[in-house]
Amino acid sequence: MRTVFTTDPFRMSFLFFLFYLYSGDNFETLIGLDEKSAQAFRVKETMHQVAVRLSKEVEQALLLEAPVSGISQDETGVTVKSTKGDWQAKYAIVAVLLPLSARINYSPWLPPTRDILTQDMPMGSLIKCLVAYDKPFWRGRGLNGITWSDGPPTAGVFDISPDDGRIGILAGFIEAHNAIHLTGHPMAERKKVMTDYMVSFFGPDAANPIDYEDQDWPADPWSRGCYGASMGPGVMTTVAKTIREPFGRIHWAGSETSSRWMGYIDGAMRSGERCADEVRARLQRS
Amino acid sequence: MRTVFTTDPFRMSFLFFLFYLYSGDNFETLIGLDEKSAQAFRVKETMHQVAVRLSKEVEQALLLEAPVSGISQDETGVTVKSTKGDWQAKYAIVAVLLPLSARINYSPWLPPTRDILTQDMPMGSLIKCLVAYDKPFWRGRGLNGITWSDGPPTAGVFDISPDDGRIGILAGFIEAHNAIHLTGHPMAERKKVMTDYMVSFFGPDAANPIDYEDQDWPADPWSRGCYGASMGPGVMTTVAKTIREPFGRIHWAGSETSSRWMGYIDGAMRSGERCADEVRARLQRS
Repeated sequence: MRTVFTTDPFRMSFLFFLFYLYSGDNFETLIGLDEKSAQAFRVKETMHQVAVRLSKEVEQALLLEAPVSGISQDETGVTVKSTKGDWQAKYAIVAVLLPLSARINYSPWLPPTRDILTQDMPMGSLIKCLVAYDKPFWRGRGLNGITWSDGPPTAGVFDISPDDGRIGILAGFIEAHNAIHLTGHPMAERKKVMTDYMVSFFGPDAANPIDYEDQDWPADPWSRGCYGASMGPGVMTTVAKTIREPFGRIHWAGSETSSRWMGYIDGAMRSGERCADEVRARLQRS
Repeated sequence: MRTVFTTDPFRMSFLFFLFYLYSGDNFETLIGLDEKSAQAFRVKETMHQVAVRLSKEVEQALLLEAPVSGISQDETGVTVKSTKGDWQAKYAIVAVLLPLSARINYSPWLPPTRDILTQDMPMGSLIKCLVAYDKPFWRGRGLNGITWSDGPPTAGVFDISPDDGRIGILAGFIEAHNAIHLTGHPMAERKKVMTDYMVSFFGPDAANPIDYEDQDWPADPWSRGCYGASMGPGVMTTVAKTIREPFGRIHWAGSETSSRWMGYIDGAMRSGERCADEVRARLQRS
């Protein structure tokens, strides 16, 4: 539960849990490690490169590092206010993480049921840690570099070294209350905690990593958590229906809004396609 | 539970529930109706008059209808950005409702554990309804005008008519999922629902109120809920400790931050006194 949802199981709606399973086919595809699983693939040169390369195609249309502070709308269109100027359009698609979408000032105001959803669907907590060694020394001992444990600090570690083994990298995921405990602290503190953990599984060879990096997602002001947002009890049956409901000329994208592979990159892309379809249909009608 | 917390019981942390009981002495004082109870007193001319009259004493220092969009701070002081200009001071006290406090832009950014608290402590939902009749007709029949029920639409109704009975007023509280169901709808719809409810308890004389008013708190953009915010499981033991922890030169007031009578006006006033003490002590030291 902590691994997939990055929140503690006692905070989760069972109905939301079932929806999430259905969204990702079933429990095996969500959590399994075989080739049919959502966890089976890694992208060479990191997933980030996919975003960077795709962005080349639309470079002219992208305005980066221009946070949006407000969106106003009337019967003719929307005005989006950013730190790099105002922008006018017929429609807007908001793709920020759902809890953060309420930190934009809307005029007119968000409908209350939508605002309640943003309050009732907090981000999970995750710190992703990479511990690097000069070699994947565990491989020579017949170990696959995977750990599962109750934590703290982590529920699981994976070997993400390059296939040729020119360097060894173990990826650890500090989740849920363990992440809340360590977020905002100096990275050196997490390096020590994670290195100690590696030693406890892989022995003294793990004691001296050549490098350590982590991404403290709750401390990132444009994410404030990771991987995604989830719903506690009583949300699915009340305000959840507003998750994809356009607010006037504003449409909602983002992985949380996808009914297929919610919380995954796949879901994020589907949500973009859905919003593009919605807006295209309205443009054709008008 | 719905009456006091305006949220559904399955969303509540038991530890938070126990803290709340302790904060308000005990269950009897919180929920009871006798003279020792928090519910025992009403203020003539409404509670709102207390705020209006107190504000007269500090009228020169009040700037109303000037929403704050950002607070920046450095080693010398704070700058508060509002729609009516920027304001500089040594310290700032933020007294908006806790979940809404994250909708202000802070520079530097809020610490992550504080941000998580704002995500993990959503407002309860309440619509307060007043149904007026030319006379408190129920009194002549030996009825006290109080109802308790499982709802919908309301868990309870109280007789808030003036003592002299020159007019009859029943106050109803639409709470938790019942409020979520009716928030944002036209007031006429809630008038019908509440009038039908009154008829079901008080008979056909209740069918024709002379007036109806309600306050749809979740639809109020500066409240987004009522009476206050509460914590689900796992919040008290993780990020709750940041609730009164100053963030640099910013201090946190508001009824949710009070360890005595949290959620009540009493708690709000105590939190104001605590913040005034905190800031005064820092001013004297500097």
